[in-house]
Amino acid sequence: MRPVTDAHSPLALAQGLIRCPSVTPQEGGALAYLAEILAAAGFTVERPVFSEPGTPDIENLYARLGEGPCLLFAGHTDVVPPGDASAWRHEPFEGVIEGGELFGRGAVDMKGGIACMLAAVLAFLGRRGPDFGGAIAFLITGDEEGPAVNGTVKLLDWARARGELFAHCLLGEPTNPDALGEMIKIGRRGSLTANLTVHGVQGHVAYPHRAENPIPGLLRLAQGLLAEPLDAGTAHFDASNLEFTTMDVGNPATNVIPAEARATFNIRFNDLWTPETLAAELERRLAAAAGNAVRYSLDVRPTNSVAFLTQPDAFVEQVADAIEAETGRRPALSTTGGTSDARFIKDACPVIEFGLVGRTMHQVDERVAIADLDRLAAIVGRVLDAYFPEDAATQRQA
Amino acid sequence: MRPVTDAHSPLALAQGLIRCPSVTPQEGGALAYLAEILAAAGFTVERPVFSEPGTPDIENLYARLGEGPCLLFAGHTDVVPPGDASAWRHEPFEGVIEGGELFGRGAVDMKGGIACMLAAVLAFLGRRGPDFGGAIAFLITGDEEGPAVNGTVKLLDWARARGELFAHCLLGEPTNPDALGEMIKIGRRGSLTANLTVHGVQGHVAYPHRAENPIPGLLRLAQGLLAEPLDAGTAHFDASNLEFTTMDVGNPATNVIPAEARATFNIRFNDLWTPETLAAELERRLAAAAGNAVRYSLDVRPTNSVAFLTQPDAFVEQVADAIEAETGRRPALSTTGGTSDARFIKDACPVIEFGLVGRTMHQVDERVAIADLDRLAAIVGRVLDAYFPEDAATQRQA
Repeated sequence: MRPVTDAHSPLALAQGLIRCPSVTPQEGGALAYLAEILAAAGFTVERPVFSEPGTPDIENLYARLGEGPCLLFAGHTDVVPPGDASAWRHEPFEGVIEGGELFGRGAVDMKGGIACMLAAVLAFLGRRGPDFGGAIAFLITGDEEGPAVNGTVKLLDWARARGELFAHCLLGEPTNPDALGEMIKIGRRGSLTANLTVHGVQGHVAYPHRAENPIPGLLRLAQGLLAEPLDAGTAHFDASNLEFTTMDVGNPATNVIPAEARATFNIRFNDLWTPETLAAELERRLAAAAGNAVRYSLDVRPTNSVAFLTQPDAFVEQVADAIEAETGRRPALSTTGGTSDARFIKDACPVIEFGLVGRTMHQVDERVAIADLDRLAAIVGRVLDAYFPEDAATQRQA
Repeated sequence: MRPVTDAHSPLALAQGLIRCPSVTPQEGGALAYLAEILAAAGFTVERPVFSEPGTPDIENLYARLGEGPCLLFAGHTDVVPPGDASAWRHEPFEGVIEGGELFGRGAVDMKGGIACMLAAVLAFLGRRGPDFGGAIAFLITGDEEGPAVNGTVKLLDWARARGELFAHCLLGEPTNPDALGEMIKIGRRGSLTANLTVHGVQGHVAYPHRAENPIPGLLRLAQGLLAEPLDAGTAHFDASNLEFTTMDVGNPATNVIPAEARATFNIRFNDLWTPETLAAELERRLAAAAGNAVRYSLDVRPTNSVAFLTQPDAFVEQVADAIEAETGRRPALSTTGGTSDARFIKDACPVIEFGLVGRTMHQVDERVAIADLDRLAAIVGRVLDAYFPEDAATQRQA
């Protein structure tokens, strides 16, 4: 094994990754860069490529070292496009440092996070050697920001088919709104989208009795859906929330009553619901609101985003302790925000999410404080030390 | 004056007009056809052409004969396009007769109506000669089905500038829903269109507290507009009615809360309202519904369509009596339906509308029963006889 060098600092690794232009679905050299470093550190590295008709082929990476209970580090090297590169203060794929910050697409989402996990693992192996009493794995996809079809889902299936088992997973998405240490995610709400169509009868506005305007019907159904909260939240989850995202008729003629009105809504739901119970509740509310007066159809789109919660256990405590030791902050255990690949990983093992500060993610001038990179790597180092205690390893070797 | 011939039967005149392909804005020979017949009958005929930037030039016709109280016949020779001509049973500009019906675009709206008025006037002049104790005029536009900018409005201004005065007007639009004689229109509702926009703040559906969804605001304002009827109708008018004609957001992203939601509505209003009082009522309802919670803007489009009523008088009675004598039906005095050029003519003189059966207007296979043409001409003949009684003419000449 090569010694840990400056090239393996969180900053150097983050720069190395940012300089690989890996906009989904391009691998951009980012996985090759990781593969080389992990292989040199003693990991067995695999680079499975997954395909699906209608989507681009995607490269992924799986690396493992050691025997025994396996701590999995998960993430993605693909990034969203930089948009107008000329609007950036620094070229988005150069990794320029200015004022104590590292600029570049992926700086926080989530090449920076991967760099910190990798730096911490390399340092840990440098301290403890390969016989640390357990196993460490990396599961890195190139398809998180895109269709997410040929990434984590298939990589987990592939690992399961090989008999790979994981004890816990740390997913390095940026979880902190404003300052490092604020927030761990121990679950996520589910997401369900549905299309609602109200059917009327077209006609002339001067003869409304010969027509049937679908718009008042849509108003009635929408009120029926929104009238009562879905729930009041649970111990670890906010209340489920329904938002209408669009409502469209598309009738340019001001003297014509339209034939149809359509709306789409999205629900972020907590662990009181499954997609099935939620769909049933929607049907119940719509039927009650419609009575015999409104003809409608509801199309609930299939979803693989169900609510899940990783019960706070010793691992969550270890991570929270490590964060508090490095930042002075006791992180909130949250389930807020959008969806992430944790919704797939949770079927393989308990998963929690902790990473950098997300404020600049997906924006122009995405950037990370170098101090945050160092502190996140130190936090992961403490997690590794706590997860694989030296005396346990000694006992096992004994 | 040429004698009245078979060429001056309602059927022959209607066929002659239908064979002129006068789809707006094309004159198609229709006004020239009328001009020749009217001039031969002794009318002074004018063919003013009106222009306006951004609209096609339009030919119109004004003809007058006689001195004294003037009965005005008004109408339009332009027609809506035939659509898919191959879907017609008979070529739409041929005037084919089948099964006692005359087929063709404009058969009822309203070349048929003009043919009946003209046939009745020619027969009346044949019976009574030019010294019948009054005046008859025709005011025919070629721009009723189109932008309606270079038609009746300018023709009335032009006539007013020449000092032309009218005692009463009969507008020959198809007023009967199903059978000749059912309905006279003695007024029309006004029409007002407005655009309503609700302003929100765009954001991610997973973080609704950072966004402001405009769709619930639009629902609230729409309910505020629809909650109470505008009125309960008046002696001669139905209740005013508000119809939403479209509601559009146009947001394709199911994870994005949109920034803005737009709706358009149209109100058909009775003589309890003017556009100004109606706009004030809309503002009042919206402000009450919005409170401090909804940011919106209302754009009431300018309208020249105000509600009007021709008070039932002796002329209305004459027309109703003539209809009852020919059809056995006492016509309803109605103000229902869309707008018509009567809304402009009412500023020049009392105007009522009576014509053919409108069932096939604007449709494929527009057609009229030949018996209806003959009966409508007979009705107009009775109106002329009642309006210009023989003894009155004799007295005046004496």
